[in-house]
Amino acid sequence: MSTHLDDQAVHRPGATPQQLGIGMRFSIHPHCDDFVEVILGALEDARRAGLTQGLLIETDEVSTYVGAAEEPAEQRLMAYLASVIAAASRRSGGGHVVAHVLLSRGCPGEVACDLSMTGLPSPEPVRIEVTGVPAIAQWSLYPLLDGDAGAGAHMDHIESAIASALRRGTAVSAAHYATKLTGDVADVLATAADAWAKVGCQVPHVVSHLTVSVGSPSPAAAG
Amino acid sequence: MSTHLDDQAVHRPGATPQQLGIGMRFSIHPHCDDFVEVILGALEDARRAGLTQGLLIETDEVSTYVGAAEEPAEQRLMAYLASVIAAASRRSGGGHVVAHVLLSRGCPGEVACDLSMTGLPSPEPVRIEVTGVPAIAQWSLYPLLDGDAGAGAHMDHIESAIASALRRGTAVSAAHYATKLTGDVADVLATAADAWAKVGCQVPHVVSHLTVSVGSPSPAAAG
Repeated sequence: MSTHLDDQAVHRPGATPQQLGIGMRFSIHPHCDDFVEVILGALEDARRAGLTQGLLIETDEVSTYVGAAEEPAEQRLMAYLASVIAAASRRSGGGHVVAHVLLSRGCPGEVACDLSMTGLPSPEPVRIEVTGVPAIAQWSLYPLLDGDAGAGAHMDHIESAIASALRRGTAVSAAHYATKLTGDVADVLATAADAWAKVGCQVPHVVSHLTVSVGSPSPAAAG
Repeated sequence: MSTHLDDQAVHRPGATPQQLGIGMRFSIHPHCDDFVEVILGALEDARRAGLTQGLLIETDEVSTYVGAAEEPAEQRLMAYLASVIAAASRRSGGGHVVAHVLLSRGCPGEVACDLSMTGLPSPEPVRIEVTGVPAIAQWSLYPLLDGDAGAGAHMDHIESAIASALRRGTAVSAAHYATKLTGDVADVLATAADAWAKVGCQVPHVVSHLTVSVGSPSPAAAG
């Protein structure tokens, strides 16, 4: 999988992704008896493909933390995650696999530089090669403003992100508390990551959650 | 399972839980070949136990939406969820089951009344009977303020909620982007729900995410 790491311009004056606290947690759930082998195998596949480069990875008993140590941060995170999900799908024979993802940037407990409302980074859109694995996801975006920080109403940022995803064709409908995304795993992850990074140009602390389902036996998922 | 529905005082002047947009989405992931039977069986167990009363439930291809239609809202939501998780654990023979939960209140797209920064409801703490199923969870809380709404800094609300969970004994340590909770499924869910409801007394729109793991084969989970 080409990760387009070399030809991206990243406009992030000064601070490193690590100083900006750019990273994610994810958990991956193969719905099969040999889930341990599927998970460990998928993580190893992504490592062998070179996709862990520039990332700090720590797996604990609930999920895996992935911090971006090098640019392009969003690109590295999403290429790695798409690879792990596709590998888990492949290793489970196309069975039902769900990934839950938390994307975070600018959390005050993680940040090691002065994040003001100006001078925030403007990363390039994520580009990941198609995985061939279709996904259905539920996606939520949380701009974490302070009550005296300016930067507008949180719903304005959310609505603008949903409008972008609709134009892109991955967002298809609203569900309670979430927006439904469909498409190749790569498109779904890129949609969420780009929206998260775009709000991050205006709001220092932005989190997004994404439940990505592949190979679901639900009738609706077959449609 | 007693749900303590009758003896709770709820101080919610005027608006119903539905008008306030109080509800959740959850997905449940048994890591076994017969996951469909486990999930459907667990949902049915909770229904037969009478725990769907006062709730609006819609399952789609990714997760299940549960809206609170009657008071006590938080109590009904958490008693139902604890019951489903415990039933899925039981039905999978104590195998590995993960639930992902999104708690939401006051989302402008869901609310059907005037939510101002004053007069927000002050629900009683959730009380759920012990399930006997130990859990490890990663928990995040998101007070969604507007940039001109007052109500302080979002991190102050989060830090206060973590301090409460530490005093309660369920919060044990910080992870990147989340706080680790341990205890019986009932205690873990009650901790998250109470924190979410408490911030909701001051901030109209509050979301919380929780990844709850039971029966994990990870060495760390056995400790």
